[in-house]
Amino acid sequence: MRQVSSSLQLDVRTDAHLVFSVAVAQSHPLSDEHLDITLDGAPLAATEITDVHGTRLHRVAAGPGRLEMTYAATVGPAEPAPVLPADDIVYLRPSRYCDSDRLANTAYSHLGDATGQEVVEKARQWMLGHIVYAPGSSGPADGALETYLHRAGVCRDTSHLLIAFLRARGVPARLVSAYSPGLQPMDFHAVVEVLVDGAWWVIDGTGLASRPDLVRIATGRDAADTAFLTVLAGNADLRGLRVDATNAEGLTPDDGVRRVQLR
Amino acid sequence: MRQVSSSLQLDVRTDAHLVFSVAVAQSHPLSDEHLDITLDGAPLAATEITDVHGTRLHRVAAGPGRLEMTYAATVGPAEPAPVLPADDIVYLRPSRYCDSDRLANTAYSHLGDATGQEVVEKARQWMLGHIVYAPGSSGPADGALETYLHRAGVCRDTSHLLIAFLRARGVPARLVSAYSPGLQPMDFHAVVEVLVDGAWWVIDGTGLASRPDLVRIATGRDAADTAFLTVLAGNADLRGLRVDATNAEGLTPDDGVRRVQLR
Amino acid sequence: MRQVSSSLQLDVRTDAHLVFSVAVAQSHPLSDEHLDITLDGAPLAATEITDVHGTRLHRVAAGPGRLEMTYAATVGPAEPAPVLPADDIVYLRPSRYCDSDRLANTAYSHLGDATGQEVVEKARQWMLGHIVYAPGSSGPADGALETYLHRAGVCRDTSHLLIAFLRARGVPARLVSAYSPGLQPMDFHAVVEVLVDGAWWVIDGTGLASRPDLVRIATGRDAADTAFLTVLAGNADLRGLRVDATNAEGLTPDDGVRRVQLR
Amino acid sequence: MRQVSSSLQLDVRTDAHLVFSVAVAQSHPLSDEHLDITLDGAPLAATEITDVHGTRLHRVAAGPGRLEMTYAATVGPAEPAPVLPADDIVYLRPSRYCDSDRLANTAYSHLGDATGQEVVEKARQWMLGHIVYAPGSSGPADGALETYLHRAGVCRDTSHLLIAFLRARGVPARLVSAYSPGLQPMDFHAVVEVLVDGAWWVIDGTGLASRPDLVRIATGRDAADTAFLTVLAGNADLRGLRVDATNAEGLTPDDGVRRVQLR
Repeated sequence: MRQVSSSLQLDVRTDAHLVFSVAVAQSHPLSDEHLDITLDGAPLAATEITDVHGTRLHRVAAGPGRLEMTYAATVGPAEPAPVLPADDIVYLRPSRYCDSDRLANTAYSHLGDATGQEVVEKARQWMLGHIVYAPGSSGPADGALETYLHRAGVCRDTSHLLIAFLRARGVPARLVSAYSPGLQPMDFHAVVEVLVDGAWWVIDGTGLASRPDLVRIATGRDAADTAFLTVLAGNADLRGLRVDATNAEGLTPDDGVRRVQLR
Repeated sequence: MRQVSSSLQLDVRTDAHLVFSVAVAQSHPLSDEHLDITLDGAPLAATEITDVHGTRLHRVAAGPGRLEMTYAATVGPAEPAPVLPADDIVYLRPSRYCDSDRLANTAYSHLGDATGQEVVEKARQWMLGHIVYAPGSSGPADGALETYLHRAGVCRDTSHLLIAFLRARGVPARLVSAYSPGLQPMDFHAVVEVLVDGAWWVIDGTGLASRPDLVRIATGRDAADTAFLTVLAGNADLRGLRVDATNAEGLTPDDGVRRVQLR
Repeated sequence: MRQVSSSLQLDVRTDAHLVFSVAVAQSHPLSDEHLDITLDGAPLAATEITDVHGTRLHRVAAGPGRLEMTYAATVGPAEPAPVLPADDIVYLRPSRYCDSDRLANTAYSHLGDATGQEVVEKARQWMLGHIVYAPGSSGPADGALETYLHRAGVCRDTSHLLIAFLRARGVPARLVSAYSPGLQPMDFHAVVEVLVDGAWWVIDGTGLASRPDLVRIATGRDAADTAFLTVLAGNADLRGLRVDATNAEGLTPDDGVRRVQLR
Repeated sequence: MRQVSSSLQLDVRTDAHLVFSVAVAQSHPLSDEHLDITLDGAPLAATEITDVHGTRLHRVAAGPGRLEMTYAATVGPAEPAPVLPADDIVYLRPSRYCDSDRLANTAYSHLGDATGQEVVEKARQWMLGHIVYAPGSSGPADGALETYLHRAGVCRDTSHLLIAFLRARGVPARLVSAYSPGLQPMDFHAVVEVLVDGAWWVIDGTGLASRPDLVRIATGRDAADTAFLTVLAGNADLRGLRVDATNAEGLTPDDGVRRVQLR
């Protein structure tokens, strides 16, 4: 059994519409799930909206004040991600932060003619060898090209570049936000799913996650689809964030290489 | 009754996987529709795949040779586009060619505090006044920022900038590829749908289309989702393209300003 | 009499070649000037190199250790900057951080058809009204385009955008690094010189400097020419920086608008 | 004896100030030089301005009309380019089209730890192997980063990327525009000078030139300093361009590798 939780504190400065992407995806069976949102201590009702691939978004309207969001759930094993008819078309397309079209020649330069599982492993190794994990080194508007030039970033950045390289070499790839038991330092994590040999496999360009323990939150093209907080309208400042994730049975050993599906 | 047709000629140079996005969307009732693909004169079977919002993609595998695609349909009036629960979240997100996050300050600089229908009309007027229609002036990797800097482009470019400006100002906006009866010069057209007051309305930043006569093909975040041809794998060169679209009852007068839904 | 001083501490990690641009330019008469450089307490000899427009660079070779640089001078009134035959050609060219060619349409959009002193004042006002002074918001590779998009930065960034806008509108413009008596917080400052009506005038897009009190250090196209420290070869980390500048007669009142030459 | 000539035709549409950079640099002894400029057939006086490194610019003011510029000279052997005290500082700086700071990690990725002559040859070979000579594939605002991403361009683009890579790896490098006897197709050429072992050597990232036969025109940081035509003010369209260069003694064999200075 995996336990996951998160909490956010926000200063809402005007009437605002907020979307949280913190709830575990529909693919996982859940028990004891609760999502509570308060504004200056009074409960606030959230609307649940289903995005693609079972992503669950929670939307609230809030006036000015101190907003607190707390989420917790006990998580069971997920069904493997299904392969939808348009998946290998949609996830080859360039996206906001995975500008695979701009990086086509660059990806070829570093990865050559390899295909399928081979190019996936080659791209993952390239990230491990060339992208330094460096919190604070990147900005919210940075995409794969900027990460390629800077050679530094956080999980989001490394995943974007990994996705861009793989799409450029013909491998459908997408971003998954996740709870990651054992992650150091603990935070929301971002990993990559690749469509190879008829199934979606998870890889981690940072090497930080124990993949068999990951719990899926949101699935999409890139961070534009998976941000844990989106301010749709109005102004709100994030003041605090805490994430926790554990696996009561202990972490599953993971060499990073063998094929793993998000379960 | 509207008649639409298109044909493409390709030189396929290797084993290739191709996706055509030329068929009228599911929202329109159709009669006499046919899509024929041949390779060196022999019929080639296409698989129809449904993408989001009723977009119909046709996929073929082809070996080397001369590929011909011909499409035609007689088109009836569409139901208005439904508003889905996640639409106003998804279509505020930045996308590959509509980098609304990068252009947030720029959009505010030109559009100010206006909202809703008012900012839509203001943004459309800005495009009409500042973006020159200039075939050949833009490239396939150009997005809204490049169009903003160059102040020139084709319908795709103007639509991308219009979408980026509107998303940056809080108006959900998306790209629609369309057959456009009366368009001069005749070609596939790209227009913008905006979500205002609970419905999707169509606007044209180029001022070239008669909006009531438009026939929807594909709907998505930007040109990454609506390209009429995608080479998923292998190599193929486009050698010829012909598009035709007419309205037997004549074109509907359109001042560009009044609210119109794609029908 | 103006007194200026600065000191830098560096951890030199390998054999390195360093260039300091902290000495007052040749245009100012000086008394009591001294520049001392030590490595782990032992004196290090610097070579003085004259760059364009009387800029004085000091170059040292240093092995690993703690390097200290201290500079101080008493500064007299400078001759006005001469106008050289190629100045109005050279300082209209785009440069690394003043990409006036990319911003040509944007500059026109905000400044219109104004010329000469009028467009200079219009551009300065635009900076004062649109660019927020925000230390830490920009990076060393940011140029005028990035500052235009972010609408925030430090004196270097505002000056780059101001220069780019002016060059795009036909006004020769360049960057000057300076000691700035009365600056809050005290630091090296970056201002802009414009060539209008046959002379070089100083303007400050941040509004922070008392222009008549400024003391010229380096003059060039942009920050690539005026950085106070350049590591030509090897590795060295800046550990400390202190700048001081005072005018014994008190600061000269400056409305920011009237024509002032660097004296 | 080398003979060089060029002619330009321009439609001047308003009162305009134009700068031509077509005359052979001061380093070459010349005979029979003439530069003639006419507007609608009437002679127009040009002012000669000396830019850095002996570059000779010719400036004219012209009203609307058809402007013709013709230049020709017989060229003797030049003195080798002197090494000035600030050269190895100035030509390590990033510049508008040679954004070596942005490309620092990329250059290291492709060139590794090599230094001096070794990294120069390695960078030249990289250009020969990765950048396709493709007229029309690049635009005037493209710099080294764009050329790196596109892997295609003309001599200007290849030279910019070569310079950026070399500066990033610690080799001072600059652009030289030149008449190039034997060039196919004949045009103005752009090559690179590198400062290695105390002298300026010429290299050609396109492999198209016979280096010993090159005749220097302009020397600078990048194409911003060496454009054959600059419209300082007003509007003028280039309508025609012809360049010719021959060596009466025949072309000098050039393997592209051995050290050659511009003579």
